[in-house]
Amino acid sequence: MSSPVPGSPYAERLARLRAELAARRLDGFVVPISDEHMSEYVGDYAQRMAWLTGFGGSAGTAAVLPEKAAVFVDGRYTVQVRDQVDGALYDYVGVPQSSVAEWLGAHVSAGQKVGYDPWLHGIDWARGLEAALAAKGASLVAVDANPVDAVWDDQPAPSDAPVSIHDVELAGQAAADKRAVIADWLKTNDLDTTVMTALDSIAWTFNIRGEDVSHTPVGLSFALLHADATADLFIAPEKVTAEVRAHLGNSVRIHDRSAFEAALADLKGKKVAVDPDRAVAAIFTALGAAGATIARRRDPAVLPKAIKNATELDGTRAAHVRDGVAVSRFLKWMEETAPLGKLDELGAAAKLREFREAGGVLKDLSFDTISAAGPNGALPHYKVDETTNRAIETGTLYLVDSGGQYTDGTTDITRTIAIGTPTAEMCRRFTQVLKGHIALATARFPKGTRGSQLDILARQYLWADGVDYAHGTGHGVGAYLAVHEGPQRIAKPAGGQAGTEEPLHAGMILSNEPGYYKAGHFGIRIENLVVVVPQNIAGAEEEMLGFETITFAPIAQNLIDAALLSGAEADWLDSYHAAVFEKLSPGMDEATRAWLAAACAPIDREPAAIAA
Amino acid sequence: MSSPVPGSPYAERLARLRAELAARRLDGFVVPISDEHMSEYVGDYAQRMAWLTGFGGSAGTAAVLPEKAAVFVDGRYTVQVRDQVDGALYDYVGVPQSSVAEWLGAHVSAGQKVGYDPWLHGIDWARGLEAALAAKGASLVAVDANPVDAVWDDQPAPSDAPVSIHDVELAGQAAADKRAVIADWLKTNDLDTTVMTALDSIAWTFNIRGEDVSHTPVGLSFALLHADATADLFIAPEKVTAEVRAHLGNSVRIHDRSAFEAALADLKGKKVAVDPDRAVAAIFTALGAAGATIARRRDPAVLPKAIKNATELDGTRAAHVRDGVAVSRFLKWMEETAPLGKLDELGAAAKLREFREAGGVLKDLSFDTISAAGPNGALPHYKVDETTNRAIETGTLYLVDSGGQYTDGTTDITRTIAIGTPTAEMCRRFTQVLKGHIALATARFPKGTRGSQLDILARQYLWADGVDYAHGTGHGVGAYLAVHEGPQRIAKPAGGQAGTEEPLHAGMILSNEPGYYKAGHFGIRIENLVVVVPQNIAGAEEEMLGFETITFAPIAQNLIDAALLSGAEADWLDSYHAAVFEKLSPGMDEATRAWLAAACAPIDREPAAIAA
Repeated sequence: MSSPVPGSPYAERLARLRAELAARRLDGFVVPISDEHMSEYVGDYAQRMAWLTGFGGSAGTAAVLPEKAAVFVDGRYTVQVRDQVDGALYDYVGVPQSSVAEWLGAHVSAGQKVGYDPWLHGIDWARGLEAALAAKGASLVAVDANPVDAVWDDQPAPSDAPVSIHDVELAGQAAADKRAVIADWLKTNDLDTTVMTALDSIAWTFNIRGEDVSHTPVGLSFALLHADATADLFIAPEKVTAEVRAHLGNSVRIHDRSAFEAALADLKGKKVAVDPDRAVAAIFTALGAAGATIARRRDPAVLPKAIKNATELDGTRAAHVRDGVAVSRFLKWMEETAPLGKLDELGAAAKLREFREAGGVLKDLSFDTISAAGPNGALPHYKVDETTNRAIETGTLYLVDSGGQYTDGTTDITRTIAIGTPTAEMCRRFTQVLKGHIALATARFPKGTRGSQLDILARQYLWADGVDYAHGTGHGVGAYLAVHEGPQRIAKPAGGQAGTEEPLHAGMILSNEPGYYKAGHFGIRIENLVVVVPQNIAGAEEEMLGFETITFAPIAQNLIDAALLSGAEADWLDSYHAAVFEKLSPGMDEATRAWLAAACAPIDREPAAIAA
Repeated sequence: MSSPVPGSPYAERLARLRAELAARRLDGFVVPISDEHMSEYVGDYAQRMAWLTGFGGSAGTAAVLPEKAAVFVDGRYTVQVRDQVDGALYDYVGVPQSSVAEWLGAHVSAGQKVGYDPWLHGIDWARGLEAALAAKGASLVAVDANPVDAVWDDQPAPSDAPVSIHDVELAGQAAADKRAVIADWLKTNDLDTTVMTALDSIAWTFNIRGEDVSHTPVGLSFALLHADATADLFIAPEKVTAEVRAHLGNSVRIHDRSAFEAALADLKGKKVAVDPDRAVAAIFTALGAAGATIARRRDPAVLPKAIKNATELDGTRAAHVRDGVAVSRFLKWMEETAPLGKLDELGAAAKLREFREAGGVLKDLSFDTISAAGPNGALPHYKVDETTNRAIETGTLYLVDSGGQYTDGTTDITRTIAIGTPTAEMCRRFTQVLKGHIALATARFPKGTRGSQLDILARQYLWADGVDYAHGTGHGVGAYLAVHEGPQRIAKPAGGQAGTEEPLHAGMILSNEPGYYKAGHFGIRIENLVVVVPQNIAGAEEEMLGFETITFAPIAQNLIDAALLSGAEADWLDSYHAAVFEKLSPGMDEATRAWLAAACAPIDREPAAIAA
């Protein structure tokens, strides 16, 4: 049993929280990484678990009882949580093997009261925990105000950045038209109102963008949309300029964000659609108390937001060409600079950002760049910081997964390069990953096919060698919105993340990112974004779909074992590289164009591939 | 509006049923093709829908109201139902687009009572229909005795064939051991008893076989298995010889099948496992009335029955070699006889049966042979009879899907052959089907993979041309039991049949049967059975599984477009054909062996395939 780390603030913070709980006659409390919108990434003001425990990951929960406390993280953070969170204060619990409900159920005593903030959890999560506590004679209590906030002296305020108009020339559909479609959906389903809480759904529906969450251009807000196609938007008034107000128009009533809960109470007698995967428990409670009839429905913006219109697709294609130029310049620079032996992960990431910013229109990165050298590449969700920063050394692989937010589109690309001469094992695995990438990129499938059906195409060549990768193959991507966007996903059906059973529709954007990770040695990932597009096939008897690859940057040819490629795969690679050169070379300086031409040259084929 | 067909008995039968219902103060009744065991195939005594309506398919339902009646069939029977069932008496309703509940809900009047036989339907089906009727102010009534039986004068009695012992040398595990495993499962789950109603589960658990259902060697019976490893078997006493009684032993108490319902009433206070997918509604009602606690659990025999032990696998392999000799002799005979132009589908099926019977140990066919010439091959579930029997003509394809029941194993094989010279389209589609068959046969996948993930491997080459097949790719197969056996299945996840999300386990037997069907022209299917087997791969990082093909018979080489095969695919074909010759040629007469050697010769490769 270890003692608390001397000088660290976390023992005192935990003690202050326990005192606050005692003052409120609570025995325990649950502290998730979550906000009022159940966002994937949350603002600094909502980083309560990090403040309380020191944990720096993006997903996790803490639970506090009078004598015990625990942190709950998934397999990505097993190592990191031990580095960052004091084992003398907190038990380490792995999820989904265990859960908050299981741990509290095991440690709570009869008669104890455990609190939770109903603005930070889903209703079904709360009901599950309530049942687990009830089985031990304990109870779950929704708090009115979060007790962590009461003891967190220097808690940041929520961002007050203004929202901006996302022009219809970029959005491709006027906000009033989107509201009309949602209003039709409400009427068809005999509903009066839908509660919208997902920040990207609100941004999409109203054609606005914000700066309140890093890497995702959304503004903190709630909305109610009604069957008469009017809406109530709940947002800090200082965020809404006169221009934005004019853009929103008279059919959108603007209220302070703090007025949202009271507005729910006004929905007495109404039939209200609420999405249990996106709306927090407090919303269900407030509507129930108000006497509204709750219909559990998926947020009606989710599917149309995922199915991009022609304007969004054109914008996204343009963003990818711009982004591909920056990535290609970076790859050239790496090829020239890395062998000198002076580079590290942070320096490489900074340089890549510089190339992206050189385009002059970058709004933000679309996520923290994964700049991973050697063994760090084997951590698929690695995030470099000063303590993990590693030199980029000869004889290793370097993996860079990054993206940009542009007003016309969101990008996400991974390339893996060899520093010096790669081993035969690296080349074999890289080629198997590439073969999987190509199999998915060239797949044709009937309308109605789900991501879970396609996933094996990307894994089959690795599986033939008895190896695999422990993440999904493809996630949805927004149009100048979230880089991780539902509802679709290409992954194993048992992978635990939603979306694999969602049929793919023409216009959806997904990533195609198989990989391979050898723990302690190296990581490989090849990621392009693709658009689901209709296929016109002579003699086809079904309505068929396929993918258009929209990411353009060279794939490292010195990592390819050409003997493992079929003729058709080598053809795909050559035609992909020809497209990369054609799209990216215009306007490039001579030296970069020459480098790109060499990087995009046809692959040296084995005799068999030439014949096939 | 048509009038009833003169001279047909169905108008009178419907009238007599309506009179019987009126006498019982019922307004309607539902007549499914089902038995007390929710069997896939039912005995003649349970063919109530066929007697009432004339419908001859294997799946369907009739519903009768005072002024209207309807028959409900799926897409396989859309044409057939119109030929066989009088449209003046019955509406034709397609499922799953509509349903019995929807049709009755639309046509029933408030206050009406619709009857159903709770020994022929699942509890969840009954609850769904009850809700649909309640919404219209009508009610659902469980009948004590089936009113169809009351008016069906010459209803056959259930089969009285004796059951026989399935020797442990064939079963590989003593019945007492199987009961002990089930008893352990009951104890682990804090249960007292499990109700077993599926006929193949009972046959497997007690190591007995019967002759009560065509093509599936099971005996009509129910069972209760208890946590003390004893059991109650409910079966007509005349079916149980002294030998079988001795085999069952003292721990198995034998009762008349009619005593089953009363025995359920004795389970007061017990915790009883019941499988809602396999046990009829009446069982739930009886247990509820008795005061038993019902635990909804899958029949505990389902999974161990599907995972064959080494003895069952050895037996099944031997059965396949024996069966492959018969099929190969048939294929030789077809090659010699069909071009003479005198053959028809019935004649071919009879000859194939003759070859199977020549082995001297055939117990039964494992299903009605699908012997389909030309356009009949495009109906995947085609069943030949005197009215559909078609001549086998030059320039067409002939498809034969058949299997045998042997005491050591159950077979199921499909071959497609060209009569005369096939067209280029036939060869292209046949080769695409073959490529899919090979991709599945050679797949390697991690433990935990489900059939829905593998399905695309078999379809991908057809999808590339915009075509598909409208059936699953693989079903489970029993060991001298049902030719269609759960829980596993390789198919699209949205295909509507259970089992696609069941992880595959080593020892499971499945079919590998992609196909292609050109309506009005031809059908293609290539079906072998495979066993899930562990893969030993040097350097593997995961526990991997794959398939061992256990069906042996030549695949028609004159239907293969070798230019479409990769080198690896041609290698698979050659090594498969080498194995066919090695397994089947011993003991063959000289002429058949010579024919087989030619049929199994290496394929003529295209230059590209030779090089690869």
